[in-house]
Amino acid sequence: MSTFVASVFIGTSVDGFIARQDGDIDWLNEHGEKAGDTGYDAFLAGVDTIVLGRATFEKLLSFGPAAWTYGDRHVAVLSTTLPDDADPRVTVHRSMDALTETLTARGARHVYADGGQVVQSFLRAGLVGRITLTTVPVLIGTGIPLFGALVSDLSLTHESTQVLGGGLVQTVYTIER
Amino acid sequence: MSTFVASVFIGTSVDGFIARQDGDIDWLNEHGEKAGDTGYDAFLAGVDTIVLGRATFEKLLSFGPAAWTYGDRHVAVLSTTLPDDADPRVTVHRSMDALTETLTARGARHVYADGGQVVQSFLRAGLVGRITLTTVPVLIGTGIPLFGALVSDLSLTHESTQVLGGGLVQTVYTIER
Repeated sequence: MSTFVASVFIGTSVDGFIARQDGDIDWLNEHGEKAGDTGYDAFLAGVDTIVLGRATFEKLLSFGPAAWTYGDRHVAVLSTTLPDDADPRVTVHRSMDALTETLTARGARHVYADGGQVVQSFLRAGLVGRITLTTVPVLIGTGIPLFGALVSDLSLTHESTQVLGGGLVQTVYTIER
Repeated sequence: MSTFVASVFIGTSVDGFIARQDGDIDWLNEHGEKAGDTGYDAFLAGVDTIVLGRATFEKLLSFGPAAWTYGDRHVAVLSTTLPDDADPRVTVHRSMDALTETLTARGARHVYADGGQVVQSFLRAGLVGRITLTTVPVLIGTGIPLFGALVSDLSLTHESTQVLGGGLVQTVYTIER
């Protein structure tokens, strides 16, 4: 039994993409600037562990040191290809099982699962307790989808919805586990 | 120049599907029952023309005569395969250009574009002025997506968001043309 619950806090286009196919999120940032307080800082304050996929991790690095806002939280990267010693700030894990074992051993309590692949893996593993979904008012047509295949339907419980600046709509769902 | 503006009024899962791969929308109906007034009747009252794809049309027929709630409105089916005389209640059109020409000639004013393929064709043709998107709190993993590829980004303007019964979230967007 895992000690932790995972949350997703992510923005998508109305057609459900978290980035363009090449990882570009300019469209997201452009709209995000108008949002006002998205609640992200308050959310991050309650998180002790961040899990990223390799693509999200490398995208984050490309933004430079200032983009690393995780402080001294444990950052785990889920990847079959990233070298173990890729970055002193992260631990690297080869599978969901190995990751879950490590997080449990470390006593993780509140995990922030970020990036499409990681979110999908966590959803399929039944580890996600809360999704904060912020929808940006644009259709981009193609890109990297947030959601993917599931073993079976996953029922969500609607908790709240608020309209942020710039017409962003933020909805919080919880998932019973 | 077309005489009409098209609206989309549709429900999707949180992962953006309008139906399962086989067309099943039981999951949608199940949640829809808890929604209360979705505004659909008021929306339909302002519509003079309905455009469906063949798949949506045939799905609708499978529900029996009571599901045909369009009254004496003009119903057009966009299909390359459906026979011209398939149903006395509908006209059949082979392409978006042919359809647009007919609707304009008939003096259509407010068109309800329904079904994934038709919505995507109308969006790509720049004919959609309003989207009422009702999000049902479930992830179904795979299915028929509402949105598809676009020539370029399509910026939406957020008009309103309300939470319906059962945790459905209904957002209205407009598109400048």
